[in-house]
Formats: sequence, C-alpha cells, structure tokens
Amino acid sequence: MQFGSDNHSGAARAVLDAIVAANDGHAGGYGSDPWTAKAVAALRDVFECDLEAYFVGTGTAANSLALACLVQPWEVVLCHAEGHILNDESTAPEFFSGGARLCGISDGDAKLQPAHLQRYFEQAGTMAPHNARARALSLSQIAENGLVYSPAEVTALSELAHRHGASVHMDGARFANAVAALGCTPAEISWKAGVDVLCLGASKNGALAAEAVLFFKPGLGEQFVNRRKRAGHLLSKGRFYGAQFAGWLQDGQWLQLASHANAQGARLAQVLQAAPGVRLAWPVQANEVFALMPEKLMQHLQAAGAVFYPWPKRAAPGALQAHEVLVRLVTSFSTTDTEIAALQAALGDYRP
Amino acid sequence: MQFGSDNHSGAARAVLDAIVAANDGHAGGYGSDPWTAKAVAALRDVFECDLEAYFVGTGTAANSLALACLVQPWEVVLCHAEGHILNDESTAPEFFSGGARLCGISDGDAKLQPAHLQRYFEQAGTMAPHNARARALSLSQIAENGLVYSPAEVTALSELAHRHGASVHMDGARFANAVAALGCTPAEISWKAGVDVLCLGASKNGALAAEAVLFFKPGLGEQFVNRRKRAGHLLSKGRFYGAQFAGWLQDGQWLQLASHANAQGARLAQVLQAAPGVRLAWPVQANEVFALMPEKLMQHLQAAGAVFYPWPKRAAPGALQAHEVLVRLVTSFSTTDTEIAALQAALGDYRP
Amino acid sequence: MQFGSDNHSGAARAVLDAIVAANDGHAGGYGSDPWTAKAVAALRDVFECDLEAYFVGTGTAANSLALACLVQPWEVVLCHAEGHILNDESTAPEFFSGGARLCGISDGDAKLQPAHLQRYFEQAGTMAPHNARARALSLSQIAENGLVYSPAEVTALSELAHRHGASVHMDGARFANAVAALGCTPAEISWKAGVDVLCLGASKNGALAAEAVLFFKPGLGEQFVNRRKRAGHLLSKGRFYGAQFAGWLQDGQWLQLASHANAQGARLAQVLQAAPGVRLAWPVQANEVFALMPEKLMQHLQAAGAVFYPWPKRAAPGALQAHEVLVRLVTSFSTTDTEIAALQAALGDYRP
Amino acid sequence: MQFGSDNHSGAARAVLDAIVAANDGHAGGYGSDPWTAKAVAALRDVFECDLEAYFVGTGTAANSLALACLVQPWEVVLCHAEGHILNDESTAPEFFSGGARLCGISDGDAKLQPAHLQRYFEQAGTMAPHNARARALSLSQIAENGLVYSPAEVTALSELAHRHGASVHMDGARFANAVAALGCTPAEISWKAGVDVLCLGASKNGALAAEAVLFFKPGLGEQFVNRRKRAGHLLSKGRFYGAQFAGWLQDGQWLQLASHANAQGARLAQVLQAAPGVRLAWPVQANEVFALMPEKLMQHLQAAGAVFYPWPKRAAPGALQAHEVLVRLVTSFSTTDTEIAALQAALGDYRP
Repeated sequence: MQFGSDNHSGAARAVLDAIVAANDGHAGGYGSDPWTAKAVAALRDVFECDLEAYFVGTGTAANSLALACLVQPWEVVLCHAEGHILNDESTAPEFFSGGARLCGISDGDAKLQPAHLQRYFEQAGTMAPHNARARALSLSQIAENGLVYSPAEVTALSELAHRHGASVHMDGARFANAVAALGCTPAEISWKAGVDVLCLGASKNGALAAEAVLFFKPGLGEQFVNRRKRAGHLLSKGRFYGAQFAGWLQDGQWLQLASHANAQGARLAQVLQAAPGVRLAWPVQANEVFALMPEKLMQHLQAAGAVFYPWPKRAAPGALQAHEVLVRLVTSFSTTDTEIAALQAALGDYRP
Repeated sequence: MQFGSDNHSGAARAVLDAIVAANDGHAGGYGSDPWTAKAVAALRDVFECDLEAYFVGTGTAANSLALACLVQPWEVVLCHAEGHILNDESTAPEFFSGGARLCGISDGDAKLQPAHLQRYFEQAGTMAPHNARARALSLSQIAENGLVYSPAEVTALSELAHRHGASVHMDGARFANAVAALGCTPAEISWKAGVDVLCLGASKNGALAAEAVLFFKPGLGEQFVNRRKRAGHLLSKGRFYGAQFAGWLQDGQWLQLASHANAQGARLAQVLQAAPGVRLAWPVQANEVFALMPEKLMQHLQAAGAVFYPWPKRAAPGALQAHEVLVRLVTSFSTTDTEIAALQAALGDYRP
Repeated sequence: MQFGSDNHSGAARAVLDAIVAANDGHAGGYGSDPWTAKAVAALRDVFECDLEAYFVGTGTAANSLALACLVQPWEVVLCHAEGHILNDESTAPEFFSGGARLCGISDGDAKLQPAHLQRYFEQAGTMAPHNARARALSLSQIAENGLVYSPAEVTALSELAHRHGASVHMDGARFANAVAALGCTPAEISWKAGVDVLCLGASKNGALAAEAVLFFKPGLGEQFVNRRKRAGHLLSKGRFYGAQFAGWLQDGQWLQLASHANAQGARLAQVLQAAPGVRLAWPVQANEVFALMPEKLMQHLQAAGAVFYPWPKRAAPGALQAHEVLVRLVTSFSTTDTEIAALQAALGDYRP
Repeated sequence: MQFGSDNHSGAARAVLDAIVAANDGHAGGYGSDPWTAKAVAALRDVFECDLEAYFVGTGTAANSLALACLVQPWEVVLCHAEGHILNDESTAPEFFSGGARLCGISDGDAKLQPAHLQRYFEQAGTMAPHNARARALSLSQIAENGLVYSPAEVTALSELAHRHGASVHMDGARFANAVAALGCTPAEISWKAGVDVLCLGASKNGALAAEAVLFFKPGLGEQFVNRRKRAGHLLSKGRFYGAQFAGWLQDGQWLQLASHANAQGARLAQVLQAAPGVRLAWPVQANEVFALMPEKLMQHLQAAGAVFYPWPKRAAPGALQAHEVLVRLVTSFSTTDTEIAALQAALGDYRP
C-alpha cells in the first residue's frame, strides 16, 4: 500500500533497459552523445516543434534554471500560493535567479485564474526601480492539489501574462499525467497554449532521475547552458539522461505509464469516497488524491501498512473539522490493484 | 504646500552645521575619526545600552544589511504585506541576503498582530530542507500606514518571534516620529520591547543622508562590517556620517524635529478631516496622513500647488468608492503653518 | 583507442548491477532509504572514522557545495593555478559560495607546495574589511597534471593552512586512483593528513553519476543539507546514489577499478615515452598521461582512431617547441590492452 | 604632515558651498531634482558627448555596479594584479555581479600592457561552458602605483579588449589627477580612447562622498538603475550628489584641485628623492608618491608627525633590501607647502 509519493517508485522497465543498453562502450561527455541527440529528436517529435531541450536530474534544478532565464534578479515570478516552487524547493528559485522574488497570488482558490493575474497587475506598484515588476508566470501541471489545467485555462492565463510582459513557465513534474488525463496532444497543452518554457518531469513517472527543460520560444534559453554548468547540473556522462528520456518516450511509453497511474488514482478516489467519514478535497483528475478524513482513520490505515502523509491544513478547501486531517495519496506507474484492494479492506476494517 | 515626502526636505540646520564643522582638517578614513566615535557614544547614551552602531547612507542599505545578518539565504523574513522592504526597495533584501525570502503575513490588517505570526508558525511547513523557515520578523516603526506600534505591541510580537527562533528587526525610517508620538524612551520601544536590531533613520528627519544600524544583541552584527564593505556602503570620509548623527542627536534635536513634524501631521489631519468628502484612512499618530478623497479634489489641490501623491488602492482599509482615491500627505521638520493654511484654503475653494 | 577522458566510459558492472538491484519496490525519498544508509556505513568503514557523507551527481556540485561550507562570501579559496575548480567549472564556486574568490597560487610549479602558501600568507593584505582573507585551501588529488600528492605533502600543506585559519578541501575526482597509486589507506591521505572535507568522485571511476562529499570535521558541514537542497542537488530517488556507492565500494571494487586504470596509464606512458619525438610532461603516477609531441604526430594518431585531446599550452612544464603540442591521454577502468597495443602500432606507423 | 590618503581631507570649499546652497527648500527625491540635472549637463559638457550619468557615494559601489553591467555572472573581468578592485574592495565586484570573476594579468609589470591581454586571450581556455570567458577589462586611472596611462596606452588596450569581445571599464578614482597630469581633454583619455564606462571619482579630490558612473556606449548601462536601487545606492535626497558634482565641475574647479594635488606630489617626490637612502619606486606622475626607504626612517618620520603608511611589499618593483619598506604618500587638494617643508625638515633630522 505505497501511496506516499510517485518518487518512492523505482524506474520503469523501459527506462532501466535504456540505461543498461546505453552503458556499453565509450561516448562523448556532457551531452555530445547519440542518446542525448536521440532524446532531443524524440522530444521535438512528441511536441511537434523545433524546441530547445536541456536535461538535468531534479525538478528543483529544472524549474529554477528555467525561471532564472525568464527574470532578472530584480523581478518577480507569479505563482499559486501553494506552488511547489514556493513551498517545497527551499529558496532555490531565489538562488538560481540571483535573488528574484516569488509571489503567490491565488487568493485561496484551487487553481490560478485570470482574475488573480488581473488583480495583481492592477494593484502592483509600477514605480521603477522601487517596485519589483512581475516578468514571469509559473503554472504547475498537474496543479499542487491534483487538478489539471485545461488548454483553454492555460491559454487564458498565458495571454494575460504575455500582455503584461511576463513569460510563462510550466512546472511539469506531472505533465505526463496531465496529458494522459486531458487526452490532448503535448503541444496543445504547452506551446500552443502559450507556454514559453516547460519543465518536463520524468522522474516521478518512471525515470531514475531525469527532467527536461524545453524552451519553445527562440532565444529564451540562451543562458541555459552557462547557468546549468555553473550550477553543477551538467552531467559528464550525459548519455544517461539521454537514454532515460529516449527510453521513456519510445512508443508512447511515458503516456502509458501516466495513464496507469491516473487510472489507479481514479480507483483510489472511488474507494476512499465510498468510505464513511471521508471526503475528497478536490475532484481527482490524475494521480494525486487529496482527502479529508478523521485523524484516527488516517492512523488506522497507516497502522495497517498504508504509506501516505498528511498535507498542510492551510491548503484545504475550507475549514477542517476538529478531528479531521487533510491527506495526500499518490499513485504511480507501479501502483497495483492489490494495493488498492488492500486499502479498501483496511478502510472496511475501521471502527470509529 | 510640500507634502510629497519627508525626504523632499533638505537637511536641518543642526545637521548641516555639524557637517560644515566636521569638514576642517584631516581625519582618519572609514569611520576611524572622532565624529564617528562621538555619534556612537551619543547613540549608546540615547538608547541607554552598550549597542553596536554602524552607519550607511540609505534606508534600503540599512534594512537589507541588517536582515542579511539575521537570516541564511535559505530562510524567511516575515513582515507586513504593505511593508516598505517588500514593496519599495526593489529586491534589495534578497540581494543582500543572498536570496532569502520575504513573506507578508498581515492578512489585510493595518498592523502586524501576534495572531498573524501565530497562524504563520502553525501553518508553515517544517520539513527541512524542503520548506524555508522563518528566522526574522521585520516591523516598521512608524508603520507603512502612519500608525505607531506601542511598546506593548512590539513586546508581544517580539516574544512570539523569539519563541519560534526568529530575530526581530525594526525598520525605523521614522523611528524618531514614533518616539516623539509615544512619549516613551527610545530604549522602551526598541531593545526593551525585544527588538534585536534597529535601523534608525535620520534622512527623513533632518539628515542629508545617514542611517544607523543598531545591534542590541551581542554577536548578531558580527558580519556587518564585512557585508557593508562588499556592498560599497563603507564611506571613506566616514566623519560625515558621524557628524550628521552627532549633530542630529545633540540636545534632543532629533526628537524636536520629529515632534514638529508630528504636530504638523496632526494639524494637517484636522484640516483634511474637516473638509467635506474627505475621510482619514487611519488615525494620524505621527507625520503621515492617509486620506480618502474624491479624485477630483486631489486634482484640485494639486492644481493649487499642493504636492502629494496617490497611494496604492490595495492598501486602503476597505473598498474605495468609484470616485475616490487614497492619498498620502507627509509632514516634516520643515513643514510650516503657512503650508497647512494654504492647503486649508485650497480645500475651502473646492466646488464638487 | 579511447583516451579522451575517464568520463567517456560507461558505468562499471558492479555499479550498474547495484542500480538494477536497488530498483525493485518502493523506497523513502531524498536519501531516507536503506541503500543510502548502506553507502554511508561503507564510507565510514573505508575511511575508518565517523564522517558525515552527502551525495550529489557531479564533481562541480560536490566541490562547490563543499567550498561554500568553508568560506564566507567575502573570503578566499586558495588553489593551484591550473586547478579544475578554477579552470573547468565555469564560476560555480563563486555561485555556490555567494561570491567568494578563488586565487591560484602555484606560481608555475607542478604541485602546490608549502612555499606557495607561505608566500601568499606573508604577502596578502590583512586590512579587514578591505582585503579578502583566505579561509580555505583546495587541493586536487590526483593533481590536474596527473601527479599524486603524498600523505607527507598533504600534511605539510594542511598544517600550514590550518595555522593560518584556513580549512582544507580535497577535490578527489580521482581520489581512488591516488589511493591505488600510493598504496596507503584512504584515511592516511585524507583526514589523517589534515583534509577537512573530501569530494570523493566515483563518476570517473565506474559510477554512472555519483560523488560523495565527506566532512571529517564535526560541524563543518552543518549547512550542507540546506545548500544542496536549494541548489537542486537533492535527488528524490536518493536510493540510486546510495546504490552506486554501495556497489562501487563493495569488496574493494573501487580500488580494483582504479588500479586497472593506473596500470594502463603506466603502460600507455611506456609506449608513448618509447616513441621518437615524444616526451612525458610529468611522471605518470596514476591514470593521466600528459605528453609533448609534434602536432603532426597528434594528428596522425587521431586519424588512426585514437581519441585524445590537446591540453592548454600554458600548463606545460617549460616552453614548447614550435611544432609541439601538449596532449592528455586518460585511461579508465575499461581501458584494454588492445587499445594500448593499437596506439603503439599507430605510433610505429608514423613517418615524420 | 598629512600624507595618509587623499580621503583624509574634508570637502573642498566649492563643493561644501554647493551642498549648503542646494539645501534650501524642497526638491524631488531620487535624482528628480535640478541639481542632478545640472550635474549631468555639466558632465556631458566636460566630456563632450551625450553620456549617461549615474551617481553613487563610494568608489567601490561605482566600480562594482559598472562592472556588473558589463559581465554575466559566469564571465571574467581582467585587471592589474595590484588593482584596487581586486585588492581593496573585499569581494564587492563578485557580490554585485552575482559571482563573476576577477583575474589579475599584469605579470609583475607596473602597468597593464597589450602583451598581457594578448597572452591572456591566447592562453585562456575557450571551451564553453566549462571555461569562464573574459568580457571586460578594467583599468585604473591613475594606476595603483601612481602612474598615469596615456591616451595611446589606453587606446591600445581598449582596441585589443574590444577585438576579443570585452568591454572597457576605467576605475577613475583619481581620474581628475590623470587629466591634470596629461593635459589632455577628459574625452581624449576616456571614450575617445575606447573606454566604455568610466567611474569618475570626486570623493578623493574634494567631494564629500560622490562618484559618477558614466556610460559612453548606448545601452551598456540599461540595468544600472535597477542594480543601483537594489544595492541601496539610490539616494533619496539625490540633490546632494548633484550639488557636489555641479560644484566640483564648475569653472574647472575639479582640475584646479587635482593640479594642486599633483604639483604637491611632484614637490614631495623631489624632497623624498633628495634624501639619502630613499628611492622612488616609480616615477611620480600625479598625486601618489611611492618610495623605498629604511624602515627606521619611516618610523622617524612618523614619530615626527608625518602621517603615511607602508604599502604591501609584493607590489614593489623588484626585491627590497632587508631593512627597507615600501611606503605610500598621497597629496591632495589641501596639501600645503608647509606640510612638505615639515617633511623635508624631518628628513633632514634623520641620523641613520
């Protein structure tokens, strides 16, 4: 009953096989190898455009390096108040950007909406150089509460951002889950919807450690190579990033892995929802399930072997009852029906 | 009718005389001069303790250097959402601290309250190293809306901050006005109320350009000298900072200047309050007057020669009516009765 | 004939097997897994002390994070003028340290010597805060020209550094090769010789991408966890760093791999030295061979399929003749006798 | 007998008068005042071109802000090994630039020469992104040893720098002394000789605290306003920088002050040179005199009341004798004949 995080899984078979296959023989260092070239070609194919792609090993590095290319140190990045970049990556965006600022603007709502951006731009001071100016919008796909932004939603936000001179970054740690959930093309939910740079995460969906930073707008990533190197994120044996992505993308593997995770998320949501005293915090659209439940039930399930964690109460959609907790359960490419059945059984065992 | 800012005034006589007097002859560089020594002694005397004092030329430098001594680059400074350090100093605190984060926690209230801090500490994530931890509280005295924190209020906030491992910084750009308004001793509203480091501003109250950073807690300022130097804020002819502070503090000069500014603030508030269609946004406790008035009245007054500016509507205490603006008028040591009478006359001239 | 770099090899069998073995099932994230624990235990065993160990993916990250723990942003790191941290890691040490300075002090000599340090400390300005003070010494083991520092040499340098208040960092990208060459224990050439923090590289000697930062001095690494996180170097699936190190260290594997590389280095040196017109730049003590040869010979060998590169002429031990180049050839755990025989044949084919 | 530093003098009469004159009445903040406008106009007049001018209070701030506009954090600034920016400004250039690197290339010579630059560019690694690339050259005028660069020398260095893609910065802390010494126009020794940005120091030559950063190349300074603000160097009462520069430049005042300092430097050199056992380290061309003398003589003079200091021996032109020290004596606009006569007398009193 492993629902702690999708990064508690190992690597998917296809990715591991690609690593093993790429291991033989010598190869040029720092990305000058055929696997890296193959991965870039696959990404261009999948996204149907002539993007620039760079690889790093963690989502924090991907997001922070990308954002540092979008804003000067005296500028601001707008994001959701519960955004991962604001809450779970220490002060990495500040570090990589040389001290730019993050500003959460979601005002208690579950997703970022054009109205949030609109109000920010209306209210923010514009006296240069005293007031720091927003020059980037960062969206998480899927969002920090498991919801999925539709192409129309992303487009509306991007247009508003662009109109005010801000670039659009997407933290796609679970982008594959979003694409699988939406049934759209990767292009439709990224550059066609106005995204300028996408951090495409593979680590949470079957890679060992591999994230791609994809610049859709020519010129935007021109500092990336220098920034990556001086941050120690240029891998000497770069073939292993290339191999992971090549293996992950091949034959739609990445979307199959994500679809499985999403399907298990839906099953898990059903099982939880059916249990007395349990409410879903938000509709489950991909592979993250947020639920409100009695603290005692949480403890009962954990005692029964279910691995999952409470989530900050401040993020809950409305006030919790005194005995309640907000919890997060995550499914992955490796989540089995057996695990879900076991959770269902444990739920059934509970006597309040 | 100069109500634009207290930094639109020149220097007070006593300060200018001190500069001229200090100009003769040679003196050691970088603060190794008798005027600097005299200023430090005067500060220890005024604050009744053995503080460490350092001088710089701007409030932004003072605040940012002080905060950089309180937090690591991966930590957080809490402040009012309308705080000057958050809104009007570009990203200086981030720059000096190497990328620490500011977090506004006042939730729409006029002043920071213990409840804001309490909630922050209850809700903030505590998973190291993922969640950035708050390690400093920054208060503005007087506050950004002209209100004054009482010793009891500062004490309550400081105690809460200290209990959670956070140091207390006071942005005292108008500290003199606060002391004059409160009628307490400087010690009572600073270190006796739990303030660890005070940025004592003289520039807005009669100096040419001089701010003192006062560390009350031994050891807290041990990096200051290095940080100031590498930020280019160590003045070679340091005697001129010393002279300004020595002249400003002598014979209670600084409090007389502030008292005059406050008295004129009170008069200005009366005059405005009496005008039809004008409401004070907050009680006027020192030398800043925030008022809600019809936009047409603002334009009328400005056309009549009154210098003052609109203030961001987001800061207003409640919603404005469609025709209203929020404006700020500031008095200083040099504000004359004539100026206030002229404003009164201009108010009287107005026909809506 | 692959002599381009030891990072052109893939991963050694034992390391790859450990990764595959660690892949099964779920594991806690961010290093809270049994493989990481096993690797730390193995390192403590190998180094015979209670060290602190942290893992990252690149040598640049390891070195820069380690150095950032040793110096303040206004301090100096001393190193060899040809040091990798100074020449080949962009400005990563400056980035991670918040702007500290590197200073090359080797004065044309092949290795750092106590006399270099002595002179630096005698001549450097000591006027605080104007003059930046040296607070760390960084040594490369093996050195940037393939030479190996003996325990006595490291001890002499460390003692001098410590006496002047500087910590000692060792860039051990090829530390395994040094231990294999010296025949000493890892402890004897690290903490017993005064090294405070060692960056132990596995990537060049059989790992996929794994470096360990080992703090021998309690307290020195207390900021490491925060610095690593905000630099995006905390791996979510941390088990894969643990597995690599555990596999690499098991049964002395790491030293066997290095011994093979060194033995092939010695053979390669013999073959080159025997060729007419070729001189070794420095004695070959480990797995890097630096040679002076006619540029035409270099081209001949490359045309015959030998992969290796010219090295900056400024690093040569004395002036080159007009037709000469300085070249570097590197052997690794995977260098075969066949490759060396092929190079020997190509050398024999050359007609000047 | 004040020869300690030209910043041990106070402000010149004309500058102080300008400050007092500018003090009356109200003025717009942050440089939006008539004195600032007047100073900028005067600078354009003096330099015969449409330059951009910004004011700050210290040379360290001026140099570091200027350099930060020229290089990215992963690039290099070339300078003389004894340059003030490298030796006496802590790590300020690194701080302001976000971690760019300084590299001293003068190889023991008294002044920077084209050959130094030539060799640097020939020898430096060019493998991006591994090797940091030089993108700025910084010259001190007058040089750190009191020598003056001629227009031809500056032109030769600038051309070489530009050819290699590096901008040219001049640290003009004593630029006035150089112009007075050369008898050329300010334009001839700055932008006409290829200087892209000049930090024009007034503080050492009669100002209280005022430095101007002059960008001659359009666009080069476009980040300056933001960088200055977030470094806390934007003065609220900006009129006082404007007034200082306006007063200093008026009627050629600045060059008269510098000419006096230079003339006294020449007299001082004569007096020293004539004393037994004293040698000038370099020809005295402006207002700094470097001399080699017996340590006992130095102590004798200091005991007699002469204020001056030893200079790092490493900077000496050749080896010192065991009993010798290198000393620096500086004259200023306020150095009197009496002081020089007193030093001559003290020299005459000395019995070895």
